[in-house]
Amino acid sequence: MNVSDAIRLKRAVRKFTEQPLPEEVIIAILNAGRRAQSSKNTQPWHFIAITDKEILKQLSECGEMGGVGKANAWHLAGAALGVALLSEDPAEKFQRLFDLGQAAAYMQLAAWELGVGSCPASIYQPDLARQVLGFPADLYLRIALSFGYPADEARLAAPPKKGGRRELAEITHWNKW
Amino acid sequence: MNVSDAIRLKRAVRKFTEQPLPEEVIIAILNAGRRAQSSKNTQPWHFIAITDKEILKQLSECGEMGGVGKANAWHLAGAALGVALLSEDPAEKFQRLFDLGQAAAYMQLAAWELGVGSCPASIYQPDLARQVLGFPADLYLRIALSFGYPADEARLAAPPKKGGRRELAEITHWNKW
Repeated sequence: MNVSDAIRLKRAVRKFTEQPLPEEVIIAILNAGRRAQSSKNTQPWHFIAITDKEILKQLSECGEMGGVGKANAWHLAGAALGVALLSEDPAEKFQRLFDLGQAAAYMQLAAWELGVGSCPASIYQPDLARQVLGFPADLYLRIALSFGYPADEARLAAPPKKGGRRELAEITHWNKW
Repeated sequence: MNVSDAIRLKRAVRKFTEQPLPEEVIIAILNAGRRAQSSKNTQPWHFIAITDKEILKQLSECGEMGGVGKANAWHLAGAALGVALLSEDPAEKFQRLFDLGQAAAYMQLAAWELGVGSCPASIYQPDLARQVLGFPADLYLRIALSFGYPADEARLAAPPKKGGRRELAEITHWNKW
């Protein structure tokens, strides 16, 4: 699959089959994230790759916004693989979350090429997530990714959804604002 | 070019030829960024696409860290295209910089497929950058991308550099930390 098709056709996938991902697919996804560029090549990431169903379920319960009660991370519970993206305090260096975003994009495009769907999940209860995954206090988890074979296989070949993105003219300025 | 090759072979490129990018290449790069996913599909970005040499030069001077005097953004001065990635205050929502990172990764992979090199530049003088580009006070610029045909054409086909990234085992934990 060429790059432009992958970018044009990739859809968010939040519902997955029960089928586990082969180990080589998991390694390929993680390696894609590992290869991402980063500010001064700091590679500010640690990945926790999760296939244990109970841990995925616990992590899926760390996505509720205070008071809102909406479980943003629900799709982790049904994923074949979750990847928690950890870094040192993202508030200290603005590049860290930007770099995690690049690593996530690489993982998700690489997955798509292998027929694997994915979606990011915001973690709004970082302390609970730290408890679930047991990572040290100097690391932070804001976003985790869910991966798996799409429950709706047709998504893999569906044309881009109309109106899914703002028009280029609406978001682009030329030379100056 | 398939996705995994693009990810494996993409190198940072900071030195460019004088050749301008055709309009269709510029549009393809911007469209790749536009198509990136974002938290709740908020598409939190505005792009300023810069081909004016004088403006690129001025923006390249916004990359000095206070007191350090190192011009991190120097490569923008020689770029055929600069893309300033603007969002509302990234400190307000942690997803914004993450989403900009995804859009940047999409643009740079799409560019690489078209034989165009690129590199992100940290903007450490955001007020000066706002003055140069004239964007409103409620938008923030932290990272800009430079694009152009690589001065060293061999980079486009070079094998991955050994030791450029930490090993997977060093950055990955399984199920728990």
